[in-house]
Amino acid sequence: MNRREFILAGGAVFAAGLSPKLFAASPTSNQIQQHLPSGDQPQAPLKVLALVFDDYETLDLHGPLEMLGHLPSVEITLIGPQSIVRSYQGPRVVADRQLDEVVECDLLLVPGGMGTRKLVDDTRLLDWLRRQVKVSNKVFSVCTGAALLAKADLLDGVSATTNKMAYTWVTGLNDKVIWQPSARWVDDGRFLTSSGVSAGIDAALFYIAQTYGEAQARKIETLTEYQWNSDADKDPYAVIS
Amino acid sequence: MNRREFILAGGAVFAAGLSPKLFAASPTSNQIQQHLPSGDQPQAPLKVLALVFDDYETLDLHGPLEMLGHLPSVEITLIGPQSIVRSYQGPRVVADRQLDEVVECDLLLVPGGMGTRKLVDDTRLLDWLRRQVKVSNKVFSVCTGAALLAKADLLDGVSATTNKMAYTWVTGLNDKVIWQPSARWVDDGRFLTSSGVSAGIDAALFYIAQTYGEAQARKIETLTEYQWNSDADKDPYAVIS
Repeated sequence: MNRREFILAGGAVFAAGLSPKLFAASPTSNQIQQHLPSGDQPQAPLKVLALVFDDYETLDLHGPLEMLGHLPSVEITLIGPQSIVRSYQGPRVVADRQLDEVVECDLLLVPGGMGTRKLVDDTRLLDWLRRQVKVSNKVFSVCTGAALLAKADLLDGVSATTNKMAYTWVTGLNDKVIWQPSARWVDDGRFLTSSGVSAGIDAALFYIAQTYGEAQARKIETLTEYQWNSDADKDPYAVIS
Repeated sequence: MNRREFILAGGAVFAAGLSPKLFAASPTSNQIQQHLPSGDQPQAPLKVLALVFDDYETLDLHGPLEMLGHLPSVEITLIGPQSIVRSYQGPRVVADRQLDEVVECDLLLVPGGMGTRKLVDDTRLLDWLRRQVKVSNKVFSVCTGAALLAKADLLDGVSATTNKMAYTWVTGLNDKVIWQPSARWVDDGRFLTSSGVSAGIDAALFYIAQTYGEAQARKIETLTEYQWNSDADKDPYAVIS
């Protein structure tokens, strides 16, 4: 088998077993609904709902959606305060649904970005978030998306992390959260929180491995020519005081 | 200086000099217009024009835009065949400008994705691309975006690379291109071509280093908590026959 064949066969190579290291940070991962294939039954599509708002950080959103979007069956829906939403970097996306509607989903994705600085004081958004979380099987924040969850008191007693460049601001919003200063991502059952921007891609692949098996995550890693940091404990931007 | 201070001071640490390795793949980099700060003069914004089309690959576009979008002065414009464009992963973006308009720019970004399979036979798109390249200071393709440039005969005699999972298809479109089977990206003066999907992020940081200095690229790497593969020769998905 040459190098290329090895890469293309990556799924099979890694399918033999899940890495214990990968799941070390996931004490409650068995609580999560599994989407592993079962016989000949068609798999229900994974319903992903992603919040967008003006000045969201573009990679916080599109990094995880890239990975999730390569699942065999997935439906991605954007929801926002208005129909056209502008990222911090400039380009605009179309929100498929609008607040204050809530939508049942498997995964609620909450990106961060400069827009969160205003939104932590937006009672309409925080009220919606509390209602939306109730109908979401799992909630996944990237970067300062955790600030919104924390301010809505949704992370009280939950182990979580956030952007390390904005760590003081985010963690100052709520001291009932068990903030982790060194973690690429933290999985605490219903809440998966990642570190800043690019860490969302690594956490998305973790979610895929957790839900569909590691072979699926490795296949998508290869398809996207990504180099997955698959160890949640390996955080090059850890806050060390 | 603790770890966090070291990271936040990254720009200064790396500003001392450009890594020779980083520029090893850039024989003609001196031809490129430099945007390095000069005294007290305000810098002109970098004008980035990004092509979008139905079934573009979301990270091919938003990965590089994330990095470019953190430059001190930048204007990002999306251009497409129609005003609302759907990515392969589902979410839709708004095109600020529409074909067949051409727009003078510093950097033309051409993403790839499944949509390129049709577009390589779209004479309207290929004609526009030839005209647009003439008014673009530099052209940057990600993944199978190189297929469009190759089919429009814009890469004849140029050293270039593309997605390694689609390597046979893309390279079969034009044998006058000097295709590189092992390269995270290739810089050949006016044309910067990257490998698949995620490689576009690494190549975007290379472009930033080339144009604004390595300190700027390292600063953005830190801001986005990214782990830059800054060596063009390090290609984990190289095609080795």
